[in-house]
Amino acid sequence: VSATALVAIDWGTSAARAYRLDAEGCVQDRRAVPLGIRHVRDARFEPALAKLLGDWHADPVPRIACGMIGSRQGWVEAPYVDCPASLTALADRVVHAPQDALTIVPGVATRDAAGIPDVMRGEETQLLGAVGPDERGVLAILPGTHSKWARVEHGRIVDFTTFMTGELYGLLIEHSMLGRLAGHEPGRFSRDAFSRGAARGLDEGELSHDLFGARTLALTGGLRSEDVADWLSGLLIGREIRAARAWALRAGIDPSSARVIGADALVERYELALADAGILASHGRGDAAARGLWRIAARAGIVAASVEA
Amino acid sequence: VSATALVAIDWGTSAARAYRLDAEGCVQDRRAVPLGIRHVRDARFEPALAKLLGDWHADPVPRIACGMIGSRQGWVEAPYVDCPASLTALADRVVHAPQDALTIVPGVATRDAAGIPDVMRGEETQLLGAVGPDERGVLAILPGTHSKWARVEHGRIVDFTTFMTGELYGLLIEHSMLGRLAGHEPGRFSRDAFSRGAARGLDEGELSHDLFGARTLALTGGLRSEDVADWLSGLLIGREIRAARAWALRAGIDPSSARVIGADALVERYELALADAGILASHGRGDAAARGLWRIAARAGIVAASVEA
Repeated sequence: VSATALVAIDWGTSAARAYRLDAEGCVQDRRAVPLGIRHVRDARFEPALAKLLGDWHADPVPRIACGMIGSRQGWVEAPYVDCPASLTALADRVVHAPQDALTIVPGVATRDAAGIPDVMRGEETQLLGAVGPDERGVLAILPGTHSKWARVEHGRIVDFTTFMTGELYGLLIEHSMLGRLAGHEPGRFSRDAFSRGAARGLDEGELSHDLFGARTLALTGGLRSEDVADWLSGLLIGREIRAARAWALRAGIDPSSARVIGADALVERYELALADAGILASHGRGDAAARGLWRIAARAGIVAASVEA
Repeated sequence: VSATALVAIDWGTSAARAYRLDAEGCVQDRRAVPLGIRHVRDARFEPALAKLLGDWHADPVPRIACGMIGSRQGWVEAPYVDCPASLTALADRVVHAPQDALTIVPGVATRDAAGIPDVMRGEETQLLGAVGPDERGVLAILPGTHSKWARVEHGRIVDFTTFMTGELYGLLIEHSMLGRLAGHEPGRFSRDAFSRGAARGLDEGELSHDLFGARTLALTGGLRSEDVADWLSGLLIGREIRAARAWALRAGIDPSSARVIGADALVERYELALADAGILASHGRGDAAARGLWRIAARAGIVAASVEA
């Protein structure tokens, strides 16, 4: 077994994922702990880090983290870097926890067409891990609670935009009148209901009207109660794709193909809806955060990397 | 005191409002009870009606009701009447509870541009109460959990559309990350924050992106936490107005003026946002449901009305 060169942590609000990387930046080992920053009381981050790392904690290798750990509620605030944000700019603006226990990567900020700020923390690192510094121009998607779409080019995040797709889906299923309609069948997925919802989402319309369709279709026999959740998922993802495509076109980004980053069932749903929208989807590699942290650490001189893998 | 000619009930999911009307259809007395159909167990509607009416129950006058009491979960199902739905069509399609304890008004259904059904129960009666049978053409708004916009003309509902504005607002404030940001100050209203949100809502954009602005603005000092709720309210109402105006234009309805029906603080918010959108707003009369029930009862011959007030 080769020696560990870097401990890399994606430290979010509710969970943390840590990786041990070897001298080539390859993942040797990984662990996930439900120890997000909101579980850390009275700013006791040092013991939280020890708990998170377990027996890795004794290893005297450099450590780097991205995510909410660098927010105002985190250990040390790492102010946002504005778009276009390069690997070098992020590496130049890392901050350090006391006793250099941890190097922390800043988040990235932009403004939308109306001048309203948009922000990410953690996703910038995943984006720069999933898109190589030599790649020319990639439209990258990070599906999730707050989905991000970004243009990544030659190791920099040119611009990005956020959609609260996952959070809205959760709210609707758990707390709304539509959620009460939805029959629960764990593990079941209706491709047909999802696709019908996605078609509605990809079409012109206003979300607060279109959502009501789940109720009226269920009421009039056009949608089975066990398909309501998949229809809503399709509607929300379809609407996100429609709006993101318009955003890309306004920004001069080619929306005919996109790279979806992640490793779960959600990515498959995006791939289905992107196909419905006529967008060629590719699947980004796993462990994008670990790869991005490695690249930033190398650029910052924290690890000696002859080749940025 | 003149004699009671009709007992009229707006019987919804969570609450019921009952009115005693005199021979001219004027409200003599009213009562509101938290005895919506979801509080009625085992279909025991007869005792629920007795409880709702209290000492009015002994009065041997005709009774009529609109709302969810006519749904599949109600006392007797009154199938939807399709748009355009006239006062006469509604009166012709009333159904009767056992022993003629209650006459029940049907709901109204339509289909949107994509062919998806839209429905209302109770609002059809309010619309026909708030717009006189002699009026030529009114764009009417019923703000609420599920806001309705309708074209009402010569005593018929030509078409309508629904927005889940109030339900989304409640979900966001009570259960979302944005709600956790929002400082709570009962009774306070920030006209400025509401108007800024409404401006964003009236502009082009996708809701699931625009909502995220509440977070980024709060994070970057552009919005005080105690103003987050009003900004979100403005955004949602603004977006509803934008989409409803587009709906009206597609349907050949003049959207330059609108009548807002209701009697609470929500109506004031709609009037502010409509003014921001350049739409001339008027305030519909109160007790629209009682007036509508009177008109339907008269048309159905349940009360003898020489003049339909």
